[in-house]
Amino acid sequence: MGDIAGNIEKVLATALEAKAQGAQVLLYPEMVVTGYPVEDLALRPAFRRASIEAVQSLATRLRENDCGEMFVAVGYLDDDGRPLNSLALIHQGEIRAKYVKRHLPNYGVFDEFRNFAAGTGTLVLRFHGVDIGVAICEDIWRDEGPMRELAVRKPGLVLVPNGSPYERSKEDLRLELVRNRAKQIGAPILYTNMFGGQDDLVFDGDSMAVSRDGELLARSPQFQCDLLIVDVPVELRTSAPDLVISDEVLDIAQAIPARIADVLAEPEEIWSALVLGLRDYVEKNGFKSVVLGLSGGIDSAVVATIAVDALGKERVFGVSLPSKYSSEHSKRDASDLARNLGIEYRTIDIEPVVQGFLQATNLEGLAEENIQARVRGSLLMGISNQEGHLVLATGNKSELAVGYSTLYGDAVGGYAPIKDVFKVDVWRLAKWRNEKARNMGAVAPIPESSITKEPSAELRPGQKDSDSLPSYEVLDRILELYIDKGGDASAIIEAGHEKSLVERVILLVDRAEYKRRQYPPGPKVTPIAFGKDRRLPMTSHWREGN
Amino acid sequence: MGDIAGNIEKVLATALEAKAQGAQVLLYPEMVVTGYPVEDLALRPAFRRASIEAVQSLATRLRENDCGEMFVAVGYLDDDGRPLNSLALIHQGEIRAKYVKRHLPNYGVFDEFRNFAAGTGTLVLRFHGVDIGVAICEDIWRDEGPMRELAVRKPGLVLVPNGSPYERSKEDLRLELVRNRAKQIGAPILYTNMFGGQDDLVFDGDSMAVSRDGELLARSPQFQCDLLIVDVPVELRTSAPDLVISDEVLDIAQAIPARIADVLAEPEEIWSALVLGLRDYVEKNGFKSVVLGLSGGIDSAVVATIAVDALGKERVFGVSLPSKYSSEHSKRDASDLARNLGIEYRTIDIEPVVQGFLQATNLEGLAEENIQARVRGSLLMGISNQEGHLVLATGNKSELAVGYSTLYGDAVGGYAPIKDVFKVDVWRLAKWRNEKARNMGAVAPIPESSITKEPSAELRPGQKDSDSLPSYEVLDRILELYIDKGGDASAIIEAGHEKSLVERVILLVDRAEYKRRQYPPGPKVTPIAFGKDRRLPMTSHWREGN
Repeated sequence: MGDIAGNIEKVLATALEAKAQGAQVLLYPEMVVTGYPVEDLALRPAFRRASIEAVQSLATRLRENDCGEMFVAVGYLDDDGRPLNSLALIHQGEIRAKYVKRHLPNYGVFDEFRNFAAGTGTLVLRFHGVDIGVAICEDIWRDEGPMRELAVRKPGLVLVPNGSPYERSKEDLRLELVRNRAKQIGAPILYTNMFGGQDDLVFDGDSMAVSRDGELLARSPQFQCDLLIVDVPVELRTSAPDLVISDEVLDIAQAIPARIADVLAEPEEIWSALVLGLRDYVEKNGFKSVVLGLSGGIDSAVVATIAVDALGKERVFGVSLPSKYSSEHSKRDASDLARNLGIEYRTIDIEPVVQGFLQATNLEGLAEENIQARVRGSLLMGISNQEGHLVLATGNKSELAVGYSTLYGDAVGGYAPIKDVFKVDVWRLAKWRNEKARNMGAVAPIPESSITKEPSAELRPGQKDSDSLPSYEVLDRILELYIDKGGDASAIIEAGHEKSLVERVILLVDRAEYKRRQYPPGPKVTPIAFGKDRRLPMTSHWREGN
Repeated sequence: MGDIAGNIEKVLATALEAKAQGAQVLLYPEMVVTGYPVEDLALRPAFRRASIEAVQSLATRLRENDCGEMFVAVGYLDDDGRPLNSLALIHQGEIRAKYVKRHLPNYGVFDEFRNFAAGTGTLVLRFHGVDIGVAICEDIWRDEGPMRELAVRKPGLVLVPNGSPYERSKEDLRLELVRNRAKQIGAPILYTNMFGGQDDLVFDGDSMAVSRDGELLARSPQFQCDLLIVDVPVELRTSAPDLVISDEVLDIAQAIPARIADVLAEPEEIWSALVLGLRDYVEKNGFKSVVLGLSGGIDSAVVATIAVDALGKERVFGVSLPSKYSSEHSKRDASDLARNLGIEYRTIDIEPVVQGFLQATNLEGLAEENIQARVRGSLLMGISNQEGHLVLATGNKSELAVGYSTLYGDAVGGYAPIKDVFKVDVWRLAKWRNEKARNMGAVAPIPESSITKEPSAELRPGQKDSDSLPSYEVLDRILELYIDKGGDASAIIEAGHEKSLVERVILLVDRAEYKRRQYPPGPKVTPIAFGKDRRLPMTSHWREGN
């Protein structure tokens, strides 16, 4: 994000590689020059100027590097007095045409109506006799406007750059959409998507090419940076183009074999998103390493394993922070995990520090429970300050939803890898990751008892999550209906859940909004993640079902 | 917010009072039924249903309570399958017409394009021979659309309900706008605005009536709930109305004297906004009291005084948390402040607790400095948990901007009263508040030395803010240009600031975005407050001036 010079270098290096592999048309993702989403950086004239200058210099450098013959489509931020989410179409060292995105998503995590002005019209350019039309991301998700107008113009090929964040879905929505649009327009579609983590979003790549009949011709693997080369059968001179760049048809010397990656299945897909999200947050923000508290529980075990998969074991530091309420099995599970992962591991007894607080002022009950969590948080932050690690918070979506998290305690951290993962999915991920290790003949990282034991915060003697919450299987179904599906109380009750329980859970969720506001960022993987996806007042007397 | 039943009771009680004072036309603020801004609550069908049912029952109850003769305009959330920011026009127990807001602001703190669908068309109703046109808030801030169309229809009176948050401004923008619109349309305007604090916004009321010539006829005081009664000279039967409710002209038995409140001058205006913002956050969220750390510095002194003005001295609890680096004068200033304010006050020596941390793990330099701040934060949160107070964070906008704040340390709190006040304005507010006290013959609450001494975090021996920052006079001018005015590096340098300093300050601001994300909410008083007003990536390599 914002590393315009660095992005241009990557774009150029990829162009050289594409040319070496015989590409004639090259399509990058949406706003590849600036990064995506730029948010309010779009409103800064200096930022827009830098983007425009970078695209101009890119055009020159493409020609200087012998890539002038290629038709190169690059997403960038343009300026007509207002910010424009645009695509530059470059040939022989010049920007031959520009297209401005027309449908600006302003729902969910998107604020594009805030940040951009919308384009008008369609664009078709003839290149070697192929009439190439373009659209940007949201343009192809809506029936009205560009799709209808482009279909009328009968392009021979359509290029669609995207900045489409990962979110779990049982169906292959993108492929389905691209197939349908290809058939509707009657032209093959090249669909490229952004790749990488950016704050609380993960872009999974998953670029593809689909024929005019809707057949999948090529597809990039998810969660990998990929240059996908594909031969696309095209019809010639189908349209009345806005501009003819070249009319003579190219002969393809040698067909390039198609490469079609499978979409990952869950839970591997989610795991891959979490790994990429964490890795990119750490790398792009210049952290060398991460530190987290290991409680012996499932959440910290999964976060530690994600961190090792993302960064390597040398860059992950575990700290066991037992109190007098920590069970022996928890301490053992924490050390077993660290040994299995091969990470550096230390133990700090928090009891003397907690006693210091209790002597300083009178704290009982919940106040005493919370002080333990806050001592742990302060110790992790102290180690972070001393040694330079990023602190990882280990809370999951179920806890965040109902407010089972101590502000400035277990909620401390610069990044929260599983904040958008329900507890039942945390278990699923753990089992899948262990099984994967076993299948590869490696040690299963996560201790079995961390998976099977009853969840407990261990902040008072004999405490269990089930003392005050229903089972996570029930809780998570209610939470998914309320948060991810936007169901109201009556809809959730109709789905078979007990009225008083539904109302209690909704009340817990509504009342915990202030805690979520101060929680660290983490990667979105569900349809509605806490954060930009779900914007609600903290001060609110609205209660579902009342 | 969301207390629909409670809001309807207030609306009804006000209607009874208005009728008793002889009102015939009654206008409430924008979305008075639901509260404003509702954010994503607008997307919930059950919430929209509750709003609609409430307006229908209100219409019935107005008639039952002998208010049927009045023409009552009530802002609410409507539903046509999509959420609509609407105005119901009620007469004789029925909703006679509805108007839907047309211009939906989607900049700054507003997300209305996300939350509402826009209306179309204009509405003019004849009531006792007066042709009443309507518009909602943003509709009157833009030249195109409703203003132009309404002018063509020649209404005899225009009603405009608003949800317009307070922000400091040297000019009286609202009055200027309403004057100009009245002259443009050729009709008097009744302008009502929301009153009260809602999360990080403060609505200052400031309702007014302006004649067709642009003369101010009546105006409510800012930061007060007010029922403003005004006789407005109107012309009769000027338009071709969409609906005639009644045609016979009313004789006014007795003219009602106009009441024109002055707009407050700074710094009193800002002080009033901060007091109202804090009071409403505390009251609406059901807190009985607040607690804060008193360092002897200016920030905590001003926050404590705001809290006493908002809640009364019995509801404010001060805690002095000295370390070995705390100076004697700081400790004395803190206790003097508490005595001046008459608040409960205790002292907790943090040194033993800090030593506990230092014995538990190796912490030096910045890590040791931060642990002191975090011990203070944990102690305040412990007291909060134990005794039930809301913790107030005392950081100011200058500190937040450059990241001079310790996460989970001085940044702890449920509300941050001065987070949008630059340091130089904190001093101004302190001097003004002391002078006001002296003018009233009361004790000036803020110790003089808290105002005059050099700012220091006192986290290491002899530390001063000026060790690593320019003077706040210079810093705040640069910050205002960069943040509030959206200036880029070159514009700030052109304004006369040193290049290397400008670049250093901008770098500090850009790098502290992650800290601001976890900071508590507080009232917006400047043009661009941190939070919804300014949405930037945390992960960003964009650097101004590079």
